[in-house]
Amino acid sequence: MQEITVVKVGGKVVETPESLQSLLNDFVALPGLKILVHGGGRSATKIASQLGVETKMVDGRRITDLETLKVVTMVYAGLVNKNIVASLQALGANSVGLTGADLNLIRAVKRPVKEIDYGYVGDVESVQVNELMDLINKNVIPVVAPLTHDGKGNMLNTNADTMASSLACALAEHYKVNLVYCFEKKGVLSNPDDDDAVIPVLTHKLFKEHQQSGVIAEGMIPKLDNGFNAIKAGVAKVNITNTEGLKGGLNTGTLLKDE
Amino acid sequence: MQEITVVKVGGKVVETPESLQSLLNDFVALPGLKILVHGGGRSATKIASQLGVETKMVDGRRITDLETLKVVTMVYAGLVNKNIVASLQALGANSVGLTGADLNLIRAVKRPVKEIDYGYVGDVESVQVNELMDLINKNVIPVVAPLTHDGKGNMLNTNADTMASSLACALAEHYKVNLVYCFEKKGVLSNPDDDDAVIPVLTHKLFKEHQQSGVIAEGMIPKLDNGFNAIKAGVAKVNITNTEGLKGGLNTGTLLKDE
Repeated sequence: MQEITVVKVGGKVVETPESLQSLLNDFVALPGLKILVHGGGRSATKIASQLGVETKMVDGRRITDLETLKVVTMVYAGLVNKNIVASLQALGANSVGLTGADLNLIRAVKRPVKEIDYGYVGDVESVQVNELMDLINKNVIPVVAPLTHDGKGNMLNTNADTMASSLACALAEHYKVNLVYCFEKKGVLSNPDDDDAVIPVLTHKLFKEHQQSGVIAEGMIPKLDNGFNAIKAGVAKVNITNTEGLKGGLNTGTLLKDE
Repeated sequence: MQEITVVKVGGKVVETPESLQSLLNDFVALPGLKILVHGGGRSATKIASQLGVETKMVDGRRITDLETLKVVTMVYAGLVNKNIVASLQALGANSVGLTGADLNLIRAVKRPVKEIDYGYVGDVESVQVNELMDLINKNVIPVVAPLTHDGKGNMLNTNADTMASSLACALAEHYKVNLVYCFEKKGVLSNPDDDDAVIPVLTHKLFKEHQQSGVIAEGMIPKLDNGFNAIKAGVAKVNITNTEGLKGGLNTGTLLKDE
């Protein structure tokens, strides 16, 4: 089985020219096949504000009304995605920018309204990787923006961590998949106030314990849920690290273990 | 040789939900393989205005400073392109949205500054259709936004008529290519004041005569130059029509003949 690495990077890294260039150099240097999944929230918030569209967040999730959907479609699929693709081409790495609508890659359903109406936010329903694999196997690097479609003509704003995990799971039938979540910390911390207190190996049991005690909280919980889901679905390796971790042969940061 | 139809549609048609839906229905009904190349100028002007970015046009061409480049990248590659792709998916037509940067499809050079500095505007340099053909041959419909890249990490704003013609020419080595320019008139007119005075067949000789006499002027001239270039490069059929023409088996409007 061929090896493929799915790297998810948060918005901040890809939204600053210097850090983007450094990230892409490290990303391109990774051996084997690869996919980049990116965010872009900071740019979306900035452009929304310039357009007079109010940004509303609940628990770190963007409430996506119709105007906000237009903004994130422009920013994620246009500005951020094509900037990355052009930069990769400049490094000699052939790439293609995609959303979940392209190639019918990821179809989602608009999140049902319960206590909160998240608006045009997609919960992943199905992943179809046939054409994606043809491109990957020709050494084309997919660069995936955090948007899906509902099959009825609408784009949907979708969590980038979930998109990376969904792609990793679908590809696990065909490849030995590594999933890497790059974020601002060195890994999952056993002490939120000590940036060096990285948990080297996080079992599912330990995760649940840390979640109960409050050591692991907020945005880390859905990220880790996505990560453990990927391991259950047959993804070979999931780790959580900062962008420096891309240089270390993916052995830095926190490695997830389904025990 | 398999037949493929490259349809270029102007911004207005794809920027209004009703006309877009009607266009896509007709486009999907066209027999055989196909590609859609779109504009998006009206949305770009509107979003630019909302962002406080001034729109400057010279002879119908957009002066593209850095801020304008960001706007057109967002609007063409994001908003307009993904809206079309999601709508095609809803019609059961698998499609992929691309710019010239994706798959290294169309590389361009920043237009040299002569009397006018057009800014980040690209003149097409090379077209590379290997991966594009793989997708086309799997019945994926490429939807192409009018942007290229310079191979140095920059996106460039590029005329959509030229992009359609460049793709048609590159594909002519491998397919029997039809190139259709859809715009607001029924065809090229022998009398600019009579919308029914369509020239059914326009030879290159007649084009030059009408250009000298002023019957054919302004934006039609580069469009026709692109069309005649395509015929010279081996494109089987070029015609200029309105969106109604897509229903007529591509036999309405003005047919170009290289005589």
